[in-house]
Amino acid sequence: MSLVNQVETHLNELIEIRRYLHQHPELSFKEENTKKYIADYLENLGIKVKKDVGGNGLLGYIKGDHPGPTIAFRADFDALPIQDEKDVPYKSTVDGVMHACGHDAHTASLLITAKILQENTQDIHGNVVLIHQHAEEVLPGGAKSMVDAGALKDVDYLFGTHTASHIDANKIGFCAGPAYAAADSFEIEIQGQGGHGAMPQLAKDPIVAASSFIVQAQTIVSRTLDPLESAVVTFGTFNGGNAFNVIADKVKLSGTVRTYLPTVKQQIKERLNGILNGIESSFGVKCHLSYQDGYPPVVNHEAETMWVKQLASQIDSVEEAFDYPPSLGGEDVGYYLQHVPGSYFFTGVGNQSLNSTYPHHHPKFDLDEQSLQNSVKIFLSIVENSKDLKLNK
Amino acid sequence: MSLVNQVETHLNELIEIRRYLHQHPELSFKEENTKKYIADYLENLGIKVKKDVGGNGLLGYIKGDHPGPTIAFRADFDALPIQDEKDVPYKSTVDGVMHACGHDAHTASLLITAKILQENTQDIHGNVVLIHQHAEEVLPGGAKSMVDAGALKDVDYLFGTHTASHIDANKIGFCAGPAYAAADSFEIEIQGQGGHGAMPQLAKDPIVAASSFIVQAQTIVSRTLDPLESAVVTFGTFNGGNAFNVIADKVKLSGTVRTYLPTVKQQIKERLNGILNGIESSFGVKCHLSYQDGYPPVVNHEAETMWVKQLASQIDSVEEAFDYPPSLGGEDVGYYLQHVPGSYFFTGVGNQSLNSTYPHHHPKFDLDEQSLQNSVKIFLSIVENSKDLKLNK
Amino acid sequence: MSLVNQVETHLNELIEIRRYLHQHPELSFKEENTKKYIADYLENLGIKVKKDVGGNGLLGYIKGDHPGPTIAFRADFDALPIQDEKDVPYKSTVDGVMHACGHDAHTASLLITAKILQENTQDIHGNVVLIHQHAEEVLPGGAKSMVDAGALKDVDYLFGTHTASHIDANKIGFCAGPAYAAADSFEIEIQGQGGHGAMPQLAKDPIVAASSFIVQAQTIVSRTLDPLESAVVTFGTFNGGNAFNVIADKVKLSGTVRTYLPTVKQQIKERLNGILNGIESSFGVKCHLSYQDGYPPVVNHEAETMWVKQLASQIDSVEEAFDYPPSLGGEDVGYYLQHVPGSYFFTGVGNQSLNSTYPHHHPKFDLDEQSLQNSVKIFLSIVENSKDLKLNK
Amino acid sequence: MSLVNQVETHLNELIEIRRYLHQHPELSFKEENTKKYIADYLENLGIKVKKDVGGNGLLGYIKGDHPGPTIAFRADFDALPIQDEKDVPYKSTVDGVMHACGHDAHTASLLITAKILQENTQDIHGNVVLIHQHAEEVLPGGAKSMVDAGALKDVDYLFGTHTASHIDANKIGFCAGPAYAAADSFEIEIQGQGGHGAMPQLAKDPIVAASSFIVQAQTIVSRTLDPLESAVVTFGTFNGGNAFNVIADKVKLSGTVRTYLPTVKQQIKERLNGILNGIESSFGVKCHLSYQDGYPPVVNHEAETMWVKQLASQIDSVEEAFDYPPSLGGEDVGYYLQHVPGSYFFTGVGNQSLNSTYPHHHPKFDLDEQSLQNSVKIFLSIVENSKDLKLNK
Repeated sequence: MSLVNQVETHLNELIEIRRYLHQHPELSFKEENTKKYIADYLENLGIKVKKDVGGNGLLGYIKGDHPGPTIAFRADFDALPIQDEKDVPYKSTVDGVMHACGHDAHTASLLITAKILQENTQDIHGNVVLIHQHAEEVLPGGAKSMVDAGALKDVDYLFGTHTASHIDANKIGFCAGPAYAAADSFEIEIQGQGGHGAMPQLAKDPIVAASSFIVQAQTIVSRTLDPLESAVVTFGTFNGGNAFNVIADKVKLSGTVRTYLPTVKQQIKERLNGILNGIESSFGVKCHLSYQDGYPPVVNHEAETMWVKQLASQIDSVEEAFDYPPSLGGEDVGYYLQHVPGSYFFTGVGNQSLNSTYPHHHPKFDLDEQSLQNSVKIFLSIVENSKDLKLNK
Repeated sequence: MSLVNQVETHLNELIEIRRYLHQHPELSFKEENTKKYIADYLENLGIKVKKDVGGNGLLGYIKGDHPGPTIAFRADFDALPIQDEKDVPYKSTVDGVMHACGHDAHTASLLITAKILQENTQDIHGNVVLIHQHAEEVLPGGAKSMVDAGALKDVDYLFGTHTASHIDANKIGFCAGPAYAAADSFEIEIQGQGGHGAMPQLAKDPIVAASSFIVQAQTIVSRTLDPLESAVVTFGTFNGGNAFNVIADKVKLSGTVRTYLPTVKQQIKERLNGILNGIESSFGVKCHLSYQDGYPPVVNHEAETMWVKQLASQIDSVEEAFDYPPSLGGEDVGYYLQHVPGSYFFTGVGNQSLNSTYPHHHPKFDLDEQSLQNSVKIFLSIVENSKDLKLNK
Repeated sequence: MSLVNQVETHLNELIEIRRYLHQHPELSFKEENTKKYIADYLENLGIKVKKDVGGNGLLGYIKGDHPGPTIAFRADFDALPIQDEKDVPYKSTVDGVMHACGHDAHTASLLITAKILQENTQDIHGNVVLIHQHAEEVLPGGAKSMVDAGALKDVDYLFGTHTASHIDANKIGFCAGPAYAAADSFEIEIQGQGGHGAMPQLAKDPIVAASSFIVQAQTIVSRTLDPLESAVVTFGTFNGGNAFNVIADKVKLSGTVRTYLPTVKQQIKERLNGILNGIESSFGVKCHLSYQDGYPPVVNHEAETMWVKQLASQIDSVEEAFDYPPSLGGEDVGYYLQHVPGSYFFTGVGNQSLNSTYPHHHPKFDLDEQSLQNSVKIFLSIVENSKDLKLNK
Repeated sequence: MSLVNQVETHLNELIEIRRYLHQHPELSFKEENTKKYIADYLENLGIKVKKDVGGNGLLGYIKGDHPGPTIAFRADFDALPIQDEKDVPYKSTVDGVMHACGHDAHTASLLITAKILQENTQDIHGNVVLIHQHAEEVLPGGAKSMVDAGALKDVDYLFGTHTASHIDANKIGFCAGPAYAAADSFEIEIQGQGGHGAMPQLAKDPIVAASSFIVQAQTIVSRTLDPLESAVVTFGTFNGGNAFNVIADKVKLSGTVRTYLPTVKQQIKERLNGILNGIESSFGVKCHLSYQDGYPPVVNHEAETMWVKQLASQIDSVEEAFDYPPSLGGEDVGYYLQHVPGSYFFTGVGNQSLNSTYPHHHPKFDLDEQSLQNSVKIFLSIVENSKDLKLNK
């Protein structure tokens, strides 16, 4: 019996695990019980587990009996500081903490995948690495430290999925190329010289300087970037001055930059600096830019994405495997995909009749548990078809 | 003996009164004891007093034995919410309240003027109205309500003086034409539409709109006004947004407008409104301007100013009567000068050796008390020479 | 023998036709001889021809013996006002006119396609419409008028190709979705009020107003559009004023707008108008926008594009069928694709050793004539495989 | 008989001279006949003349019999490239050249002044220097070169007058302090990098950069200068770009700066440079500013101006001596007043009934010749009262 066909019989356990985790959520970087739960589950299956990888992360190793590529699957397992407002038996038992982004489901899906794989090593070509990642929700995230700690050693391909309440249950979205943006933040301080509101000649007005800066900065997107690329530069806050009749001493701005390409991010940084230097010269003020890089963009590899999409479309319980547009949100799965080819796809879990269409991070977020089988089936299909992958190293 | 020559003998009393008031300061609109003190002093001299004119204001009436013009002198008597930090026997006895702007001296000078005039009615041509005004420091000020209450009834000319620690003691400054600016304030609210920092297409960014507004508003002074006129438009505060990665919902600005001419003020108001309407159309935001008129400008009448300057230059204790440039501060004495001709001049009281060169409103503000005689002498000289004034009504 | 395999034997004629046309180029809307040449060629084959369709356009009709969809192929045949600077026997014989964009090759390819089809109607399922279009290079183009004249009557699908000297010979580029942009133009007049350079108060400065407009207009791309969409707003010219010391009376601007989506174009138009209204209010000037729509974008239908790409990849002489990025140029083939599904692909003709890598519209433009067989083969493959197309009407 | 009273008898000659000069105008720097005419006239009177002073300028020296200050009077004598359109017997005999600014009248007045003075040296205290200046209308003007050539040697005071058709005949305007502005010009080139209108990422758009510059430059007047000072920065021309769909390669701007104070001019130059540097940094363009200093401001000395005003008010034929506001025009008489105290006043010559109210530089400009006597009388009164002047050296 094919691996994919074995999923149905584990569906109850899949839901049980998901509900257990849902009732016991832990915040990012504090996932003590969750990591123990995962380790125990895998070790009970006889899977070799490496613990505390780059923090609370775990790695599980499954070896197929036949030669073939090494494929990694990644699932994150941290929860959010949100109060669960659902009225269900499996609601969070921890006050103010909730799996409101589906990481419980990601973990449950990967554990069942691991179980089926481990029970069928005789049919497996190549090896599988289970990457159970902590701390996706909070910078600097767990992905980078797990990569740095060797999570991708000998790994040829990486796949993963995110549940999506905005996609109908049993539909799977694929996005070749940039799927999530890099989401950076910055703070700018423009130091002028305060003074009497009626004596501009004795002051350097930072409010006028900062306004000019923001106006000029609009040309970054409009005139510097390739119009076929996507980017956003938003100034979220502007604060300056204490009194209507006093010229302010300094202004503080903050904002965010969203990009898909490192070259575009670099162009934006250079223009921000160039314009700020210009403002210094134009207005005699001093400008300071503090730029914080967020997660890198998630760039799905085209060939692997098309390949998994094709596999997904052949799974009976999958109604539709379709192209999903890029989003400007952020995910640290991009770190893995900088090193090995692979794809991160979206498993639809939205179901109006099950109240599972609330947006992610909503206090009533939930998901259509039946649809989780699709993630497992796709993972298994990847392994079953891994011979088709060309090792492009 | 001329009126002017009688001043020396009252110099001690002048200083006593000033010191008494200095020790007993009262805040604007709360000058209960001060108004009683003034009323008692004048009534003890036999001067007819009208009380509670437009608030705590008082009017005193002195009739000369000979026909002539009616001349008003104005002195204000409120103090400031400032802690007196001087180390002198006459320092304020009221915690946190202080005559830090010389209104005590103005009042003392006018009381001694009144005393000398009342004792010499046989030599006086015309009448004198003493305007003891409350509440100059705080909007809406006492001047307007005293004018509305009839303070200028039958008055032909008005004169007054402000002590000036930035002018050397015994020098008197005169400024024909605009001397103080109109000082208005405004608040602007720019209501955009908040949204996700990465999705500008779903929002109306009020920070960009407000920045564009401020940049455009620079053209009010640079392109709309007659370059030979003076005006200032300052944006003192700019506050918008709560998070770096969220497009703000609204921005609040505040600022001040300084002008000498009502036509110029009107042009500025029109351009502010015109540009805000433009910003609404350009950015799809909603703008609201709330404009508060402050005191009107103080416009000294040229003929009367030149005339008093001439009188002042002939007084022995006056070292120099000179032209002093306009200031962009505010004073409510302008209300009187909108109705009758006259002039408001600056009595120098700065004296390094007496520690009386601190700026006005400074916790150590003081004045060279000897120099107050000059104010009194100029007032008396005005009355003695009132025949020279042409009644231009 | 398959249709595709018959192409080789017609290769010499293909090149002959192309060279004949290359030597006898005619300007857009003046293609008298060319249209006669095409009509004669088709009629000699026994193909029914409809002439003067929407101008100099021609339609040819080939009926297959078996039922099936009706597929149209479009080739344009006008030349450019460019002096041919090549040193080849087949160079243009017309002074100042040249086939510098490959329309001669498009036409030759379609004529050979027609010949092979007409000789094999017994094997054809469905019908073929040959759209020989005049006047692609000059607005308003021939496509719209041919569509209006019924060129697409009963047509189910449309395909076409453009030669591309920037793509290697024997490679074929495909671009699903937007492939060419809509390229519009606009002129703006900002009427101020001229005046003495030293008296801004008596003028309305249109140079400051127009500068503010251009600065604000940067926010169209940066803040109004979905960052995932592409658009360009360029101001190409700015002319105002006659003397350094005189405030100008009016300013004229011109520019171009490039978009892929009608909704994005519409947003841009609305913002341009909104900002111009804003500028009128802000600066008291009068603004007039004159906006000329150019060709619509060329939006290739995804399914049909993927399908032809697949067909192309199976043709032996095609080295590679690959994804080619969208361009911001313009083409009027988009008019057809607004009405019927289909795809417009790029036939690589660049060959360094044949001097055929000059850009289109260059006086030395040429192409690798051998590679034209690929266009013909793909057209024929489309017809041979037309059963696979689903009629989605 | 007082000098002033002798003027009436010379009135006819005054008018004759003016009419002769009016009929024989010569352009700036080409005043060959005019300078000879003046030299002959003065030498015929026995006045020592120094010729070709700094060009076509002349100096005449009159020595009084009594000791006293040396007073210089300046009159300019060049004409303009304007076609005389008046229908009067004394209209210009030179095609396209005309005394359209009253320099003929200035010269005639000074010659008659010289005649009367020379005939009355027995009554004169001090000496008089006659400065007949060429080339006032065209940069660099004659004043600077005459000063450099020693025109002010031993001169204590300088006075002069300009006729004014916008002032009623027989009224004389005085303006203490700044009377004419410094009128400078500038050209700016902003070198960007041209490119395809749809590919801003490959270009540096100088139209956006120049627009940003102009918008920022509004802050020079609005935020850098003392609001009590006057200045104008006008951009008169803006030219850039050749085609609507091509990003321009460079932009050229020109404009004018008007100031009264050298410090203000300096501040403006610094801000222009600072902002241009800023624009270079902000937009990656190259900016070049070419700034040409025009005439310096004309700053009348206060004491001397008040003194002449007083003298003028006592002349019977003068209806009114009044304060006239500053103008933003330019005059090179300011060079003299940088070195010696003095005043330059306005002799009203406007008379509706004589068609003499056309603006200066108008093809029908004319003046009320009778009113020229006032200039002469004031010059003579200055000499008669020169004892009152304190030599403040």
